[in-house]
Order: sequence, then C-alpha cells, then structure tokens
Amino acid sequence: MKLPLLQVALDNTSLEDAINSVEKYGHIIDIVEVGTILHVAEGVKATSTMRKLYPNKILLDDIKGADAGTTLAELCFKAGADTMTAICSADVNTMIAMKKVAAKYGEKNDVQVELYGDWTYEHAQSWLDAGLTQVVYHRSRDAELAGKTWGEKDFVKIGKLCDMGFKVTITGGLHVEDLILFKEFPIHCVIAGRSIRGAENPTQAALDFKTEIKRIWG
Amino acid sequence: MKLPLLQVALDNTSLEDAINSVEKYGHIIDIVEVGTILHVAEGVKATSTMRKLYPNKILLDDIKGADAGTTLAELCFKAGADTMTAICSADVNTMIAMKKVAAKYGEKNDVQVELYGDWTYEHAQSWLDAGLTQVVYHRSRDAELAGKTWGEKDFVKIGKLCDMGFKVTITGGLHVEDLILFKEFPIHCVIAGRSIRGAENPTQAALDFKTEIKRIWG
Repeated sequence: MKLPLLQVALDNTSLEDAINSVEKYGHIIDIVEVGTILHVAEGVKATSTMRKLYPNKILLDDIKGADAGTTLAELCFKAGADTMTAICSADVNTMIAMKKVAAKYGEKNDVQVELYGDWTYEHAQSWLDAGLTQVVYHRSRDAELAGKTWGEKDFVKIGKLCDMGFKVTITGGLHVEDLILFKEFPIHCVIAGRSIRGAENPTQAALDFKTEIKRIWG
Repeated sequence: MKLPLLQVALDNTSLEDAINSVEKYGHIIDIVEVGTILHVAEGVKATSTMRKLYPNKILLDDIKGADAGTTLAELCFKAGADTMTAICSADVNTMIAMKKVAAKYGEKNDVQVELYGDWTYEHAQSWLDAGLTQVVYHRSRDAELAGKTWGEKDFVKIGKLCDMGFKVTITGGLHVEDLILFKEFPIHCVIAGRSIRGAENPTQAALDFKTEIKRIWG
C-alpha cells in the first residue's frame, strides 16, 4: 500500500516562530502546511517565505476559503502554494473556481475540501463530480478540547470517503500512537500539529511518525 | 425602526489598495470591514492598520474562522477588531471560544456567524443558545457569478432568522436598488462591496446607500 504522507501544520502565531519550528523537521516531512492561524497572522507572506525555505516540498496553504475562489486562489498559488483548502460549506462553484486557478499555476496543484460540521455524502459526491478529489477529515480542535474523541462514527465516515474515491487526509490532535486506529484505510496523508511542533524533540517526533507510518502501512 | 448599519467590505488584494479606497467613504459608513481577501493577503496588519485609520468606527474582521477559536480571536481582537466572523460549519465550541475572547477585549465586541451552504435552523438555534446573536446572510459571490439571484427562498430564511431573534446582516453583490427587496425585515446591517468600492464615485455611492437606507427604514 502507498504510504500516507506526513504533513505538519504550522499553526504558529508568528512567522518567526514558524521558521524556528519548521527548521527542526521540515527536511523529514512530506508536506509543509501554512496553518490557518499562521496565515491569519501573517498573510501570504507566510506562504511565500515557506516556499523559499522549502522549494522542493509540497506546500499546503490552509486558508479554508469559503467564497471568492478565484481571488483567494490567485493569492495562495501565486505565493507558491501547491495545494490550498476550501471549507466544506463553500458553494461548489467556489471550489471549481479555485481548481481552475490551481491548474493554471501547475498541473500537480490541487484544492482540498476541509470537512467541518454537518456535510453530507451528497455534498461529497458533488465535489467529486466537480473534480475535487481530496478531503481533510477533521476532528475540530475545539470539539477535542470539549472532550470529543475519535470514535466509530469517524471511522465509518473515513471508510466511506475512501470508498467513494477520495484521497483522505486525517487530522485533529493526532498523536503517533493514534495512527494504528486508521490502519485499515488507505489514508492519503496524516497531519500532525502540536504532537510534532510541541514535542520536546520535534526532529525525533517527526522521525517517530515516519517510522510508525512505515510500520503500519509499509 | 432602527436604521440598518452600512458596512463596506474591503476585499482588496493589498493594504495599499484598501487604504486608497476606504479613504473615499470611510467617514460615511458605520462599519469598516477587513474582508477575507484583504486579510488573507496581508494578515492582521490589515486589521491593526484600519484600527489606526478609523479609531472610532466599528471594525469587523471577516476571517470566517472554522476552528482554534481562542487563538484566532486573540489575533483579531488584539489587532483592534470589534467583531470577527466564524463560518457556520464551525463547531459551536469554536464560536463560544471566540465569544469569550471577544468579551475579554471589550464588552461591545462580538462574533458573527457567516451563513454558507446547508446550515439548518437547528444549527441556528444552537448558536442562539450559546449566545451568538449575529448572523450574516450571504449570497455567495461564486454562486452569484454562476447566475443565482436573490429570491423567495432567501427572503423566507432572512425573515425566519429575524423572527428567531438574530441581528441579520445581508450581503452578496448588493446594489443600492436591491435594498428595497428587504424593506419588510428589521435588517441589522447591509454590506456593500464592489457597488461602493468599484463605483465611479465611491463617496457618492456610499452617500446613496445611506440615503436609500433612511428612505426605506427611516
């Protein structure tokens, strides 16, 4: 089975912090993510800076765009992103507009749909029909803080999305020991945030994720 | 009836453009909005700059937050926003987290829920129950470009939201001649974007909106 990619979400509140952090594990991971928090703090400067630091890594800009797809996509892809995110409640025309700009800047560029709240499989099918093949299955950080954990409901949804043909990325307070929960699914990508950024030894933490991914899916 | 407020969405792709634009009508309008596009381009610098330019206007930061409510709200309110937006598909705990930070920075500060996609009245009631009393009823820009116009469905939803007790803001390609469509509703705020920013004479366009609002609701 193809190994899931490893992505780290740079959810730092300043570019300086993000740079100090990513330097410790950027060479190990597959996808560098300008997290929503970092992007809200610093704007597209965060994206262009990460592109300069990692010219050959996949660079994902997690802006969770809801509208004005063309303009937002121009900002992200022009700054060097390979992938940007749209929120699931966006109109499918917004997502299509982003995809068009993505393709203009590079044939491997793409748009991911971030799953929050009460999306339906009907919505999901409409994204597939429109050429959107990547989704991010998210356990909300605030839901997590309120005590909601990974459970059967999540696994059913993840399995169904994989079966529908989506490339599924998983995220939301994922620790290395949680990965085994997803072993039956052909996960496209695993996003770690604080479990790598906030580790005592972030370099080792990134290596541990890589090792565990290989052990489970290799 | 209380007059609806007039808000202009600064959806410019650079702070320089936004400043050149807002200077023409900032003194006329009630709420200066750092639009999503401007915020994505420039980060919180856009918010703090608008706060300096308009110390006494209501300043709204339209980031459409979906998660990490506390951190995103800290960024927006610390930079001088009075109001920030959350996307409707966010977990209610994310909205509650934003509200807490809003209150910390000022008792009049608030959080607005941006309505996109298939939200339900059950969701809306959960926001009210959690103390979220402001919603933005949105005709998506991309839906608009795809030919969808204001219609009976929109008016039913807007009426119901007003009846539920929400302060309802309306937006989405609104021209001054569209305002009369909403005359039966106690609209809280009207957002204009390109119909003021893109007008041949933006100062006059803002005055025209003010005059029409007074004529209809005065």
